Amino acid sequence: MAAENTGRLRLNDALASEDTVAVADWLQAVDDHSERAYQVAGLSRSQMRRLGGLLDSESGIELYKSVDDQLAADVLRQLPAARVAAFLDLLDSDHAGNVMREVDDRTREAWLSALPLPRARVLRDLLAWPKHSVAAHMVPETLTVGPAMTAATAVDEIRGHAARVRSDSRTGAYIFVTDDDNRLVGVVPFRNLVLAGADRTVENLMETDVLALSPLTDQEVAAQLLIDHRLVALPVVDADRRLLGLLTADDAADIAEEEATEDAERQGGSAPLEVPYLRASPWLLWRKRIVWLLVLFAAEAYTGTVLRAFEEELDAVVALAFFIPLLIGTGGNTGTQITTTLVRAMATGQVRFHNVPAILAKEMSTGVMIALAMAAAAVIRAWTLGVGAEVTLTVTLSVAAIVLWASFVASILPPLLKKCRVDPAVVSAPMIATIVDGTGLLIYFTIAKMTLSQLAGL
Amino acid sequence: MAAENTGRLRLNDALASEDTVAVADWLQAVDDHSERAYQVAGLSRSQMRRLGGLLDSESGIELYKSVDDQLAADVLRQLPAARVAAFLDLLDSDHAGNVMREVDDRTREAWLSALPLPRARVLRDLLAWPKHSVAAHMVPETLTVGPAMTAATAVDEIRGHAARVRSDSRTGAYIFVTDDDNRLVGVVPFRNLVLAGADRTVENLMETDVLALSPLTDQEVAAQLLIDHRLVALPVVDADRRLLGLLTADDAADIAEEEATEDAERQGGSAPLEVPYLRASPWLLWRKRIVWLLVLFAAEAYTGTVLRAFEEELDAVVALAFFIPLLIGTGGNTGTQITTTLVRAMATGQVRFHNVPAILAKEMSTGVMIALAMAAAAVIRAWTLGVGAEVTLTVTLSVAAIVLWASFVASILPPLLKKCRVDPAVVSAPMIATIVDGTGLLIYFTIAKMTLSQLAGL
Repeated sequence: MAAENTGRLRLNDALASEDTVAVADWLQAVDDHSERAYQVAGLSRSQMRRLGGLLDSESGIELYKSVDDQLAADVLRQLPAARVAAFLDLLDSDHAGNVMREVDDRTREAWLSALPLPRARVLRDLLAWPKHSVAAHMVPETLTVGPAMTAATAVDEIRGHAARVRSDSRTGAYIFVTDDDNRLVGVVPFRNLVLAGADRTVENLMETDVLALSPLTDQEVAAQLLIDHRLVALPVVDADRRLLGLLTADDAADIAEEEATEDAERQGGSAPLEVPYLRASPWLLWRKRIVWLLVLFAAEAYTGTVLRAFEEELDAVVALAFFIPLLIGTGGNTGTQITTTLVRAMATGQVRFHNVPAILAKEMSTGVMIALAMAAAAVIRAWTLGVGAEVTLTVTLSVAAIVLWASFVASILPPLLKKCRVDPAVVSAPMIATIVDGTGLLIYFTIAKMTLSQLAGL
Repeated sequence: MAAENTGRLRLNDALASEDTVAVADWLQAVDDHSERAYQVAGLSRSQMRRLGGLLDSESGIELYKSVDDQLAADVLRQLPAARVAAFLDLLDSDHAGNVMREVDDRTREAWLSALPLPRARVLRDLLAWPKHSVAAHMVPETLTVGPAMTAATAVDEIRGHAARVRSDSRTGAYIFVTDDDNRLVGVVPFRNLVLAGADRTVENLMETDVLALSPLTDQEVAAQLLIDHRLVALPVVDADRRLLGLLTADDAADIAEEEATEDAERQGGSAPLEVPYLRASPWLLWRKRIVWLLVLFAAEAYTGTVLRAFEEELDAVVALAFFIPLLIGTGGNTGTQITTTLVRAMATGQVRFHNVPAILAKEMSTGVMIALAMAAAAVIRAWTLGVGAEVTLTVTLSVAAIVLWASFVASILPPLLKKCRVDPAVVSAPMIATIVDGTGLLIYFTIAKMTLSQLAGL
């Protein structure tokens, strides 16, 4: 594997030789995409400029495939606009658009000006859509035929198009059928068109019941729909059903992966990084993490208030303190199990708000069974610590009550946030743990006051 | 939206009418896939049997698309083998194979016997591969042409194949080129074949540098590779480069989604459910969750031992107890942020073991900045609780030390587990919190003993 530490081929060395062949050799030898991206990200600005000079169109595209859009933009920014334009012109429009979204308005304008006019117009249209809309990710060039054409004419038409229109295997699987007004009326697999009798009309071959997306559909929803329906591409149409472009399966997979990563980061109690981990600087990591840490710290500070309120009880029975981490930890763990499962089920569209009664019924039944098991574990633990019957009873009752309470909060919170149009992924493991910590201590000491004879006078 | 509670069309009602049209109407009206699956999952066995009787091949396929393999198997299990075979024969082989993996050996054998012999043989071959290998998910029927054919002959050949071979838009984008021994020698986009001059040979049109998978490649690795390279399909070849089948982009997206869900569940401290959430019974949820809860409980029990060891210190300065949840909570949060980011970066192939020095450098620098910020927050909190200068100093130093310790453990643990061939996703938020809790308390009380004059004599 090229990614091993020993004998690792370095891009720096290839660049130092100022040799196009050396860079091509490096691309050949290092076939691991993340290793390539890691090495490119480690280059200085001047090295990036040199790299840009040593890439031809083939090696440029090959390298582009292994880096993310932001890193591609970082490299391109070091090059003259004419050279950037020549490279962007090689890319599919949706990919070129994604890279161009990563630079400031002035740089983008300079690049657009250096592009051929018709191509610049297509890209400008694409860049006008909001970043998270499906339209920002669509391939704007589509191959269309008319419903009245014969299959043979249609294939000839596509043959003619192919020379003019930027398209590739991604857009070629389905041929969309539009009327004179560019309104989408059907779809026909390219294969069927070719393999059908030459004189059958497109109208006879096409499927008219076509699922289509509106351009402002959220990218996540659109990608999920395409994956759910196991489609190769989905057309994007405006309010008059005029065809604007296509969302293809490879872009959908990219979007789904990006969204899953963002959700995972949110679930870990951090803001999404938005750049690959190895490229994130400590300063960026700090900014993405510190806000939630301070919010959670402030929320958790409430536990101090609760404990101070029960200072006399703690003073009287110091053994109560022994179980604080165990009880609140168990509450946090129970809650975390539920929220992560629910948040993921909601992200993949398996669970919606109207399922809340079903969720609650399921989780509270599970919660009762879990509470019983954990109570048994608590009896054993309290007994081995030798804290006496009363404290054992307190701890056992508390663990059961805290498990039930955590189950309830964790079941209700993610769908509730979704209903309020907040991304349920913000209910991170740290957040649910924090919520359960303070309230769990209240439950614990309330039960202690009711159970312990030593606290009767307080 | 059909998924709203009021006026929701119920599958039960459609079934009660014993009318094929009613079921078709229900499919038409309820276009949300998860809602369909939810309603199907709620049926009794006899209702499932009735449903099977009311579906024709078209509505059967349409319904199949909206349910997972296990639910599809649940419904099919209620039907006579001949009817199941007729339905399985309509599915692509990879999908049929996935459904058949969900039933016991006897049922599967009965279904295979009812299938036409050649088809049964294809499915038997598919089912022989291990469940998580890419071969289990491949489309075994491929369209191949010879390198010496002209483009026109090749298209005719495919036209002839198309009648015989089970294939669809998923396998049609790329045509694979094999020699007389069925060895993969190249690939040509179907479009290029059609649009090229009729008398050019396939050899001239094909790309020979074809990325291919070995059949035992882990499904997750294979899917990630296909998504990384933005491909529509990847060929699966044996050790002699003989073509066995194709992994297509829609299956790759499915696998990636399934793996992301499993990772999310592991990260929440639960075993993966393996069924859609709404279909998981409380008993199943209990089994998936209780093991980790008890393991974590046992590990967390250690905190009780630590606290009992410092019983005298706690008795002398009860204010120390106030900060226990806050300190261990902050440690857990810091660790969780790091592990979730790292685990996800490792799952998507962005980070490998050889990156450990880079990870440590990044995380420890970030950790120092976070420790400073949290120490400042701790001073404020201790001051507002009015616990005096010495305890304030203890808490401040402790929070900084715990943040650094948590950063170190969280950075090192996921890559270390990966190195030991354990899925790093098991480093869940609850697990890292548990590890940091006990050790964090040790740090806290050790600093307290060094700082507090009241504890000097103990």
